[in-house]
Parts: sequence; C-alpha cells; structure tokens
Amino acid sequence: MIWVSGWKLASAVSNAGGLGLIGAGSMYPEVLREHIQKCKKATNKPFGVNVPMLYPEIDKIMDIILEEGVEIVFTSAGNPKTWTSWLKEKGITVVHVVSSVKFALKAEAAGVDAIVCEGFEAGGHNGREETTTFTLIPMVEKELNIPIIAAGGIATGKGMLAAMILGANGVQIGSRFAATLESSAHQNFKQSILKVKDGDTKLTLKELAPVRLIKNEFYHQIEALYQQQPTIDEIKTLLGRARAKKGIFEGDLVNGELEIGQIAGIIDEIKSVKIVFEELIHEFNASKAFVHRLS
Amino acid sequence: MIWVSGWKLASAVSNAGGLGLIGAGSMYPEVLREHIQKCKKATNKPFGVNVPMLYPEIDKIMDIILEEGVEIVFTSAGNPKTWTSWLKEKGITVVHVVSSVKFALKAEAAGVDAIVCEGFEAGGHNGREETTTFTLIPMVEKELNIPIIAAGGIATGKGMLAAMILGANGVQIGSRFAATLESSAHQNFKQSILKVKDGDTKLTLKELAPVRLIKNEFYHQIEALYQQQPTIDEIKTLLGRARAKKGIFEGDLVNGELEIGQIAGIIDEIKSVKIVFEELIHEFNASKAFVHRLS
Repeated sequence: MIWVSGWKLASAVSNAGGLGLIGAGSMYPEVLREHIQKCKKATNKPFGVNVPMLYPEIDKIMDIILEEGVEIVFTSAGNPKTWTSWLKEKGITVVHVVSSVKFALKAEAAGVDAIVCEGFEAGGHNGREETTTFTLIPMVEKELNIPIIAAGGIATGKGMLAAMILGANGVQIGSRFAATLESSAHQNFKQSILKVKDGDTKLTLKELAPVRLIKNEFYHQIEALYQQQPTIDEIKTLLGRARAKKGIFEGDLVNGELEIGQIAGIIDEIKSVKIVFEELIHEFNASKAFVHRLS
Repeated sequence: MIWVSGWKLASAVSNAGGLGLIGAGSMYPEVLREHIQKCKKATNKPFGVNVPMLYPEIDKIMDIILEEGVEIVFTSAGNPKTWTSWLKEKGITVVHVVSSVKFALKAEAAGVDAIVCEGFEAGGHNGREETTTFTLIPMVEKELNIPIIAAGGIATGKGMLAAMILGANGVQIGSRFAATLESSAHQNFKQSILKVKDGDTKLTLKELAPVRLIKNEFYHQIEALYQQQPTIDEIKTLLGRARAKKGIFEGDLVNGELEIGQIAGIIDEIKSVKIVFEELIHEFNASKAFVHRLS
C-alpha cells in the first residue's frame, strides 16, 4: 500500500471500524512522523504502521513509531526476528506479513502477535511460493497457534466470510482501499484500477522481488527484456528507481509500476471509505444469511 | 484427473453422493468404453466423462459416450463451440472447464449448461491468466447466468462452503480424490501427494500448455532448460511423450509429470472415497455451524 495509504486513508479506515495502516515504505522518516501526527488528530481509534524491513533507514522509522506512541506495527519483507523483540519490549503489538507456511512458522517463533497471510493474487510485493489465499490460509491454520489475518483477493464481505471459513481470524484489504476517495494514489491510477479485468495483472520481476502489477507498457518492457535472457543487473537497470511512485502517486500509467491485486477485476467505482465499510459489513451479513439458508 | 479417475473412482464418488467423472484424456477409445461399462455396473447413480478437446480421436470418444448412454460430459482444453451443440442435441448435459472470465463467457455463449471455473492453484493443466479461485469465482459470478462449479484448491468442507460464499453453485474436487484408495494412480504417486507442502508444486511449461506439478527431478530439468533460453521444440523434446502416465500411473517420481494442486499441502492420508465424503459433509456442516455462531 505504498503511495496509497497515508494518514487520510488510515484514519478513515480506523474511524469506519477497521484498523487503518499507514504505509511507511514510501515515506521519508520525517514524512512518516507527519502522517502519524495527522492520523492521531484525525481519529481517536487505534491505527498501525506497516514497515517493510528492507527500508534503508529502518532505525529512524522505528524510533519515530516509538516516539509518536504508535501501538501496532505490521512488519513485512524481511526477517521477523530483527525487530519483534524490540517492539514487543516497548509494548507494541507486532503483526508480520508472510506468504508461506515456512515464514509463518518463523514469524510465530519470533514472537509476533499475529500474522498476515498473503496469497499469490495480492497486489504489490509477494512471495516466491505462489501459494494462493484459498490454499495458504488452511495450510497455515493447520500449523499455527497465533491469529491469522488473510490477505490477497479480499475486497468484499463475501471474501471476508470465505476467508474466515478457510481459517482466518480476520482480513487485510488492500486493493479495494487503493480505489477510495481517501487513498493518496493519483486519480489516473485509481481510474486504472477500475478498468482491470481478469488477466490484466501479473506477478513479475521474480528474480528481484516478485511484484503483482497491471500489465501496462512498463510491464511489456519487462517482458521484452526477459526475451533477451537479461542479467539481474539489466533487470535492475530497467526497473530503475521510484517506478511505483511514478505509477501510483504521479499517475504515469505508461512508465509507472502499477501495483494492484487480481481482485481489482471486481472493483468498478471509486468510493469513500465509509461507503466501502458499509458495503463490506452489509455483504458480510448477507453472506452469513445465505449460509443460514443453505439446507 | 488423467491416470487417476477410472471407473473405480468415478463410481465410488457417485455412490457416495457426488458426481463421479471418468477422465477420458488418458484412455484409448475402447478403454474408455470399458470404463463406462464397468462404471454403469458399479453404480446406478449418474456419472460423467471428462473429455479434453485436444484429444486426437475425439470423434470416436464422443460416439462411445453416445452409444453407452453417458448423460453428462465435461469438456475441457478447447473451444466449447465445437461439441456443445452436438452433445446437447443428443440430450447430454454439457459442462465446460474454464480458467478465465473470457472463456467462461464463450462457454456460456456456446450453450453449455454449467461451467467449471478452475483457479491457478489447481493441479494439472491450467490457464494462462493465473487467476486464483478466490478471485475468479466472484469475477465470473458477476458476468454469468449459468451455474458455476468452483475448482482449484478445494479439498475440504471448509473449502466447499467458502467457494459457495464466493459465488459458486457447487465444487469440483480433484487432488483430494487422487489420494484415495479408489484412485487408479500408482501408490508411489499417492504417497508423494501426502508429502507435498506449501511451495512444493509449480505452474510450469507455460509456452506449451501451463501445468501444475510437483517440483521433482523432471521439474528441475525443465527449470535447467529454461536457463538456456530454449526453443519451443527443445521444450517439447524434453517433455517427450507420456510423462504424466510415467509419473502418475507408473509411479516414476523422478522422471514423471506429477500433476497435483497446491491444496495437496493439507492432504496427509490416503482414504476411501466413502470416508472422504463423510469428512467433506461433516466439515461442511461444521463450517455452517461456525458461521451461525459468528456474532
């Protein structure tokens, strides 16, 4: 949710009854501080910060989180051992994002409070095992004792209930909130989410860090490069820097990296977070009623 | 379900309350006839035949299906227009297997009675869009008016209920039945299913026809060949002929093509079809009760 989830989106989600997350991955440390401070002013409900552990100045990020009194941290893209104890000692709840059973077990062993299990269909950075939400959740549920938050492919109340039946205790929703009024993504990117149909996203750049994105011109350049059996350095050169910012935040739909999940295929309107929540809860209850009616 | 689903498995499934399918893809025409005849003797319940439309002697297969009075045909891997009208004129129910919204719409337009929507996590041959069950079902449900049977990742009663909440009217279960006593797969292959963990299967051979298989020595040979930027002919040469038979039916776990779905990760015992059905139904009902208890 880099370039998407700032204080506006996070506070709106928390105010609507969810747990809003500020995505630190796209923020300089002092920008993150500003977002945390604004988020605290915009909601009196709990919210969290997602920290990709590959972040170069992660020490500064963690210090700010502590100084600003953030109570919940989601860590991702790295070893959960590195920061979990430190955060837990400070009284902070730690949730780690994984995409496989193996890393779920490592996170549990590292002492995290809960895990996010993210399936292959999820947008943005993803795992190498390519395990889908439908199969990952029951596999993880069989092995773990801590709470499981399902992610990847969930954008509706139906998806929420289905994930819970498969073994999740809760869900993390990304793509649906990227296309809200409160998302800090560029209008062009939000519009491009609405146009996504089945087959329009792809997991690529697997040699670097697998990422699911919209198959735009930039994606086709990657594919063309793959035809020439490139070195890792050649792939890195094509990727360059700040591709996600260019696509998601600046709205360059041609050259940007447009990270979104497969479930964008059923997202067809930009809405307020409040409306999205009302619909999620209404559909979740309607799905429960559907189950009640099953003979 | 080639080399797995003969008359024994199909009749056991039908007797247990499901719709058993004979997989014609791995059978010579007269072998199929024998399986249909034996299946009719073993059950008085309806059963069907799955016909991959790339089958070289498909005319003979269809004539046998007609002569033997098979009432339900599942077609896959081809254009649903080719045979649907012919089958429907004969009073046969036609279900077509798809892995994308686009092909689901084509199948509906061709006049099929229902579709099987198969997600990326499914074993064996699969689609190019890589759409997962969790996202494919709601996307198809939004567009189609005919019944939807979900496939891919479903091996439990929880999976059945989750798929129905996502929009499916029923489910097709493959991998779970490959590891039953009645499956015609080799004992070695059945044992290898039990050993599969998260990340042990992969969708490969995408240039020919994408297939999900266990990452055994044969798979690693494919991966090694890919490092050399092979031509399609070189890939075809490596694949050779009858790889699936070698692995699934003859039990060659080194050189065979071991087709199975991701959900094999939660399959840990070879059971009778009867026991599998009892467990499916028990867990399906328990999942319904779980939903009833949700506040």
